[in-house]
Amino acid sequence: MVIKGLKCYGIKRGKTGVGIAVIKGRIFAAYTRNKIKAAPVLFNQQNLGEEVCGIIVNSGNANAYTGSKGIENARKIAEFLAKKLGCGIDKIAVASTGVIGRQLNVEEIISLAEEVLKNLGEDMDSLKAFAESIMTTDRFPKFSIRDFNGVRIVGVAKGAGMISPNMATMLAFIFTNAKIEGMREVFKEAVDLSFNRLIVDGDTSTNDTVFLVTTEEKEVEKEIFREKLLEVFLELAEMIAKDGEGATKVMWIDIRGAKNDEDAMKVARAVASSLLVKTAIFGNDPNFGRIIAAIGYSSAQVDEEISLEIESEKGSVKIVDKGEILEIEKAREIMNSDRIIIRIDLHKGNGKAYAIGCDLTPDYVELNSKYTT
Amino acid sequence: MVIKGLKCYGIKRGKTGVGIAVIKGRIFAAYTRNKIKAAPVLFNQQNLGEEVCGIIVNSGNANAYTGSKGIENARKIAEFLAKKLGCGIDKIAVASTGVIGRQLNVEEIISLAEEVLKNLGEDMDSLKAFAESIMTTDRFPKFSIRDFNGVRIVGVAKGAGMISPNMATMLAFIFTNAKIEGMREVFKEAVDLSFNRLIVDGDTSTNDTVFLVTTEEKEVEKEIFREKLLEVFLELAEMIAKDGEGATKVMWIDIRGAKNDEDAMKVARAVASSLLVKTAIFGNDPNFGRIIAAIGYSSAQVDEEISLEIESEKGSVKIVDKGEILEIEKAREIMNSDRIIIRIDLHKGNGKAYAIGCDLTPDYVELNSKYTT
Repeated sequence: MVIKGLKCYGIKRGKTGVGIAVIKGRIFAAYTRNKIKAAPVLFNQQNLGEEVCGIIVNSGNANAYTGSKGIENARKIAEFLAKKLGCGIDKIAVASTGVIGRQLNVEEIISLAEEVLKNLGEDMDSLKAFAESIMTTDRFPKFSIRDFNGVRIVGVAKGAGMISPNMATMLAFIFTNAKIEGMREVFKEAVDLSFNRLIVDGDTSTNDTVFLVTTEEKEVEKEIFREKLLEVFLELAEMIAKDGEGATKVMWIDIRGAKNDEDAMKVARAVASSLLVKTAIFGNDPNFGRIIAAIGYSSAQVDEEISLEIESEKGSVKIVDKGEILEIEKAREIMNSDRIIIRIDLHKGNGKAYAIGCDLTPDYVELNSKYTT
Repeated sequence: MVIKGLKCYGIKRGKTGVGIAVIKGRIFAAYTRNKIKAAPVLFNQQNLGEEVCGIIVNSGNANAYTGSKGIENARKIAEFLAKKLGCGIDKIAVASTGVIGRQLNVEEIISLAEEVLKNLGEDMDSLKAFAESIMTTDRFPKFSIRDFNGVRIVGVAKGAGMISPNMATMLAFIFTNAKIEGMREVFKEAVDLSFNRLIVDGDTSTNDTVFLVTTEEKEVEKEIFREKLLEVFLELAEMIAKDGEGATKVMWIDIRGAKNDEDAMKVARAVASSLLVKTAIFGNDPNFGRIIAAIGYSSAQVDEEISLEIESEKGSVKIVDKGEILEIEKAREIMNSDRIIIRIDLHKGNGKAYAIGCDLTPDYVELNSKYTT
């Protein structure tokens, strides 16, 4: 059993997928900050209460930029599930991912949902079917699980392209049985420290959603839960970066010594977003000049006295020390890895931050110049 | 004769190029806003007066992130030219483009400069040699010329990758004989309306520089000069976008109906910078959903009531009218052009702006993952 009381399943047929999770518990949600929000996001914001009995997700159509008809369609789907589960519509959460600007085929989704409901299960295979049904350009389903002190946290995510700070075409569903005080703050903090630091291509989608549902069966110490929840969120975020469309490498940009945390975050984002840095990473090229240029235009307070270190499972090397260029060649070998960390010290203060990104490859462009309207 | 009193030439040998322009006149300059400025930019800012007698440019090495030794090297090169031309060092302007983080080989540059000085000429071929000597990843030299009322404006530019709002690894040299009141303001306005609206990859270089030199031989009406100067700047800016590394298309993003001009500029930049929009343009894909998503995350005040039109020399088509999706198929044919205009009306007010960009192609990634450190 994945989580006591959780049943789920999903089916994908052609481009259309439907996944359903049935679970009674408290729900916490974080949504995209894009000003043009998809219908399911608007519907949840207006409709969803603090308790949930089911979640329904479709892939293949984002139900975004679809006006009032889009919201009506989201409501129809929620109504269908509420009726089936015998609970109020305010206990149904919806999510969509896929192409923008087309009305949903509600009949097709409900017909698939009927089938999904007949196959609900409690085991990992059922969870896997749920995860696979909501994939779009994802190359693999994404899970992260933690067990401790009788508590379990299970996270499922989808997301590959269009990921940016503040989440993008990214859906994540976290289920747990934990009961803690201040769950809302712990959830928000974990979102902020993980998905909101993901940068794949700088585009922010209309549909991003993170749900956390807890059955609250097991009381647990807040600090240990907070730590484990963040681990799950970071693991999922890193999987999404790894699956960044066409990506071959995950990169962590780790900033310290900034004037303050805000400045550190500006630098982390500028470096993680730089196309020139991302292509250099793809090419195993320790092109510190591009990193320095990105630091310089980040709008943070910086000067030339920067230190720069590159690290991977192959070791680490300091390539710039307070503006002095040390070693380049060794860095090439260290960069030849699928997970690299760029550590930057600005020598300006105690500000810290990090961002999670990926490289930019010719495959990204191929994929996105063909992904259809 | 290109401009009376202007002599120039340039030589490129291997990766190192040197171009020299000898001209007596008033000089106006605009530099990168990157906080980490290259040595030649810092040197000019400290050293250059209002009058000039010569400009010396090298390619192959940006002389950026080179500390006080870099500034000393820029000074040595300026001193060399000042001595040769018999003028003060405050009348020498310098510029560099190329790799960041390496000290200049001053001897090599001076030796090439000696050769260049021996070949100075007044004709278009000499100007062409100057333009070619300062190319890096450029695929073609860039010129723009206007003649009117006895006035001539000649612009030369280099720049391809690393172009962003506020200019990037972009050098432009504009020579004229015009005399007008308020030249400084006219120059700044033209930079703002052209080079500062260029977006190739969102990276901003440490070296960007625009120089305007005028011999002030010919008085001319301010309004006509302003108009022609902007034409030259826009023509050069469009050439740089066209030469965006690996680019196949120039795109203009034209915004109206924004709450104000600032909001319009935010939207223009977000759309022109979106990798998903840029790859869609490359694929002739009228993926309005990606444009709408970019408008939504631009931080401007927007809602779903947006109109969207695509135009090229093949015609124009409105694909979205106040949120209603009209026609898609015709847009594919219109997008199959090397210059397309995306017109967006936000229906919020009278704010206007534009940005000049290009598509993103697999070649961009290939080129930039191999360009050396």
